[in-house]
Amino acid sequence: MKVIIMADFIGGLAAFLTTASFLPQAILVLRTRNTEGLSLIMYAMFTAGITCWLAYGLMIGSLPITIANAITIVLASIILTIKIRNTVAVRRGQREPLI
Amino acid sequence: MKVIIMADFIGGLAAFLTTASFLPQAILVLRTRNTEGLSLIMYAMFTAGITCWLAYGLMIGSLPITIANAITIVLASIILTIKIRNTVAVRRGQREPLI
Repeated sequence: MKVIIMADFIGGLAAFLTTASFLPQAILVLRTRNTEGLSLIMYAMFTAGITCWLAYGLMIGSLPITIANAITIVLASIILTIKIRNTVAVRRGQREPLI
Repeated sequence: MKVIIMADFIGGLAAFLTTASFLPQAILVLRTRNTEGLSLIMYAMFTAGITCWLAYGLMIGSLPITIANAITIVLASIILTIKIRNTVAVRRGQREPLI
């Protein structure tokens, strides 16, 4: 019984940390608009993956998985959107290339 | 029965995408050494969170959770290490500040 309680606690902590970790990254990108070191492919794949996790959570009726990934989708989408905008702007030569 | 199979497929796809997504970011950081837009706090929290997911996977005996997070820890740790090195170097004024 103790192991199950411990596992649930570790699982909850893991979900909190991996979800909340995208908040400082989203704030940094919103504040500096600098996405130079960020990989566009990563955030495209990651956002797609998180969307799958959300669908998975809804399909198996898991509230923690659904809520954690709903939050992460919002944060990852903010980062992805600004990264796409910067990449398009650099390609159009509109902005001093950050790379 | 069909929903369960579909849910397992979506869950597997989600695990693959969110794990594999850190590969292009690790490659970009290894190639460019540029971690300017990356949040140190994000990668510290994320790496801690992934470590918890790995412990959780081991505790409940889930091979997919264990393998996916073991791979992600390696990739996230590469990014985190280079980010810490750059941050320390900038603080010591050794390198032309990227920020």
